[in-house]
Amino acid sequence: MYIIGGTASKNVAEDLSKELDAPLANTISKRFPDDEFYVRILDDISGEHVIIVQTTYPDHNTVELFLIQNAAEEAGAKEISVVIPYFGYARQDTKFQKGEPISAKVLANLISLSADKVITVDPHKEHILDFFSTSAYSCSAVPELAKYLKNKDINMILAPDKGALERAKQASEIIKCDFDYMEKTRIDDSTIEIKPKKLDAKNKNVAIIDDIISTGGTMAKSIQQLKKHGAKNVFVVCTHGLFAGDAIKKLNNAGCDEIISTDTIQSDFSRVKISPCISPFFKK
Amino acid sequence: MYIIGGTASKNVAEDLSKELDAPLANTISKRFPDDEFYVRILDDISGEHVIIVQTTYPDHNTVELFLIQNAAEEAGAKEISVVIPYFGYARQDTKFQKGEPISAKVLANLISLSADKVITVDPHKEHILDFFSTSAYSCSAVPELAKYLKNKDINMILAPDKGALERAKQASEIIKCDFDYMEKTRIDDSTIEIKPKKLDAKNKNVAIIDDIISTGGTMAKSIQQLKKHGAKNVFVVCTHGLFAGDAIKKLNNAGCDEIISTDTIQSDFSRVKISPCISPFFKK
Repeated sequence: MYIIGGTASKNVAEDLSKELDAPLANTISKRFPDDEFYVRILDDISGEHVIIVQTTYPDHNTVELFLIQNAAEEAGAKEISVVIPYFGYARQDTKFQKGEPISAKVLANLISLSADKVITVDPHKEHILDFFSTSAYSCSAVPELAKYLKNKDINMILAPDKGALERAKQASEIIKCDFDYMEKTRIDDSTIEIKPKKLDAKNKNVAIIDDIISTGGTMAKSIQQLKKHGAKNVFVVCTHGLFAGDAIKKLNNAGCDEIISTDTIQSDFSRVKISPCISPFFKK
Repeated sequence: MYIIGGTASKNVAEDLSKELDAPLANTISKRFPDDEFYVRILDDISGEHVIIVQTTYPDHNTVELFLIQNAAEEAGAKEISVVIPYFGYARQDTKFQKGEPISAKVLANLISLSADKVITVDPHKEHILDFFSTSAYSCSAVPELAKYLKNKDINMILAPDKGALERAKQASEIIKCDFDYMEKTRIDDSTIEIKPKKLDAKNKNVAIIDDIISTGGTMAKSIQQLKKHGAKNVFVVCTHGLFAGDAIKKLNNAGCDEIISTDTIQSDFSRVKISPCISPFFKK
């Protein structure tokens, strides 16, 4: 068994290598002066099971994955598993309007062509797995995120909306605290109140947990409201921290006390390693 | 028949629309704040022949192409033609060393999945067409480039090396001038002379023609040598102007009098439209 980490996921590949006691394949990879990607696998991987780890975001990392898959195939790998810590385009999982592509399906299909198995993490919606024409599995980052939160004296885990309640419930069971979801109520034409459906945040340490934080807009509003209602510390927790544009600034300005994400997308806020959620798929 | 231009090739799509007297499909396209691509085809293209025009360079334009292809497919297009003015990764057309992918083949394969026909321009090597698992054709930009050069009082067309001689010959026949190729001769340990194999450039207007200019390094050396040997004006001509890094500066510093490329990749040097080479494929 060999592990190959693409540019976007060298960190996760290294961690999996340690956890699975399987070597990282020696590779050369670079971008040409015109920015095209070059990769070469130096080890003899013929007849081997190769695990390729690559987040498919942004777009150039997806093309990189296709090329690494082909390199492994051309080198005679017996089995190719693809680990996608963050699967991009997951939110484009249906035709919301006529004339749109089903982007998640397109990319799942293309990745499947040279993969015997695909593993991804918190894929926004589970039905995305059906888009892969090869065996596809997902794992949840919640246990690892909850483990990290255990030391933070959290009183209450909140989902940003009702649809995400299950994630908050799961985390609360590990942390052993209350859970709830944020509910929007229209007060008048210009005012929308956002607060926990049932619980009172006053003097509590609160964590809001979501799968993806992109621009952080909704999250920032929730933080503001919780602080307004007297919450002590507010933690923002997610699996995939995209933090697009000035998301971090927005969250901080809203009064967020700590931003926590996993390393499916590497950033300064990757406080939790995702590899322990993935490695069980490959343990004998 | 409808024509859809991707972000990289709106120009070529518009030109084809005029030449073929076929409408550009109305589309909405944008990048989300996290930089993922969104496209929606607004016209009813069901049962129609759709021509999608998109240069597959850099990588994000390739992903964009996949998504537009899927949007056309999902919208019920009867036939999908893909026009790729510049097909990226064309120079990675074989395993030069063990452990490498055949990048051009990977991308050709993926594009073929949702295409009934593929047209590309000067694909570096013709065997690349075999990588497409659908009908694939190429056209040459040389006639259009030569037409442009006709007004420039060119005395001599040069290929940058022997392998590219055919292109120079073809251009010379249209312009009605001499042709030759640049030959490298090692003079001593530290000196390599580059000059036309047979012809003398002294007091001549010379054009060097190649398919791709990337960093412009070799081209700059050739220009310098030609100027040293007394060439009057030196024109640099290519189909695909990548102009990576400081290529333009290098060419100018070497004494180049004009840089000319087509608009397969749009730049300030796109002096020649590529559409007249492509449109005959779609004319009844």
